[in-house]
Amino acid sequence: MTVSPAEARARFRAGERVPTAGWAPGFAQANMIIVPREYAYDALLFGQRNPKPCPIIDVTDPGSPFTALAPGADLRTDLPAYRIWRDGKLVDEPSDITDYWSDDLVAFLIGCSFTFETPLVAAGIEVRHIAQGSNVSMYVTNRECRPAGRLSGPMVVSMRPIAADRVADAVRISGQFPAVHGAPVHVGAPEALGIADLSRPDFGDPVEIRDGEVPVFWACGVTPQAAIMASQPPFAITHAPGYMFVTDVPDYSYAV
Amino acid sequence: MTVSPAEARARFRAGERVPTAGWAPGFAQANMIIVPREYAYDALLFGQRNPKPCPIIDVTDPGSPFTALAPGADLRTDLPAYRIWRDGKLVDEPSDITDYWSDDLVAFLIGCSFTFETPLVAAGIEVRHIAQGSNVSMYVTNRECRPAGRLSGPMVVSMRPIAADRVADAVRISGQFPAVHGAPVHVGAPEALGIADLSRPDFGDPVEIRDGEVPVFWACGVTPQAAIMASQPPFAITHAPGYMFVTDVPDYSYAV
Repeated sequence: MTVSPAEARARFRAGERVPTAGWAPGFAQANMIIVPREYAYDALLFGQRNPKPCPIIDVTDPGSPFTALAPGADLRTDLPAYRIWRDGKLVDEPSDITDYWSDDLVAFLIGCSFTFETPLVAAGIEVRHIAQGSNVSMYVTNRECRPAGRLSGPMVVSMRPIAADRVADAVRISGQFPAVHGAPVHVGAPEALGIADLSRPDFGDPVEIRDGEVPVFWACGVTPQAAIMASQPPFAITHAPGYMFVTDVPDYSYAV
Repeated sequence: MTVSPAEARARFRAGERVPTAGWAPGFAQANMIIVPREYAYDALLFGQRNPKPCPIIDVTDPGSPFTALAPGADLRTDLPAYRIWRDGKLVDEPSDITDYWSDDLVAFLIGCSFTFETPLVAAGIEVRHIAQGSNVSMYVTNRECRPAGRLSGPMVVSMRPIAADRVADAVRISGQFPAVHGAPVHVGAPEALGIADLSRPDFGDPVEIRDGEVPVFWACGVTPQAAIMASQPPFAITHAPGYMFVTDVPDYSYAV
């Protein structure tokens, strides 16, 4: 949807509940994880130790739902869908977390691979899940993240099928955006990541893979949700996979 | 000194006390700040919020003097010189911090611009302080870092005089290393950073600036020491400016 970031957030705040890939093109989107202050150090350290899946691009002050990435936005209402976690179990998927908010919470915004999709498309590389109007495919892998305090868990990846003669371009272009997952972690050979069936993603939707295309895997900001499931902190809130926070930051401000 | 990182650390451990620029070329060096666990979240957040001056490349577990960046190294003994801070005041500059160590301390290793000096030299760009055998010039600027909890302070920069026709190359090459300060924050015009006299650096040694050269400023990992002076935490340990931790990590592993 070619709307501004502020318009996108206003529509989500009003209740529209859709995956955000392709929305507000040219502006960075972000994953989110919110934890009680007592878990904030572990969450921040988990990001520092696992910068490919968890590149932290902003951290709020305790109790503040506001972020430097989009002045005026409210993290409690402006995402299209959230997940509420208790003891590592998903207990609710609301469109608004005002009722769950407290002064004890700290929000972490994490770079999202949607940020380099606009440059990929601009280079003539089809991004299938955008073309197909669906959510990106995401998979839990057999690669363990480096633990941080009480948080540990496997790396999650997103997958885009790329024509074999454009794989090098996709690596090069996404590699210019290290703050938002950067270059792929894996090209081809899904079985080596422990992914048995690409048509059955753990999160998001399956996408068509055509002859001559290779599945390319990028570290994914849903990884903290896998850590929540594995580590079972008493309480956490996240975005719903694919239903991101749309920031006011231009994609290219993350380019090197 | 063309020695291996392990040999460099062994010599510093044995008492050799020299600036480390040019030592173990090809291997990344790191700034260090050590704080009590109770300050660790603020320190980690200060790095997240100020990634140009404070790109954190490793964090130890509380009480552990060991780092993933150099297995077998001991952070208490393997730097050539340390600084001990109490309430924001420098109280000691030992060559070994074993007597100051406790199980409550967390060490942060921060990327160092020495990492991209080898690629600069390889590109035929003279790095004056290496050529001259001195410490790099460092200056406290008038730019405030983004505060994090109880930590705030000005940004510190390192300066290298670069021939005007190589400035673009120096920007491009250092920009390939965003995890170790990356591209310069300022080119020319020292007065705009609040630097009155380049021949009187706040840390390190003055270097010669020749006709046709421009002073180029990179964000500097001594910035946490300026934050310690400004914020006065009860206790902290740092490296002495220019006397870095030599890691086992090749410079180019930080290139994008």
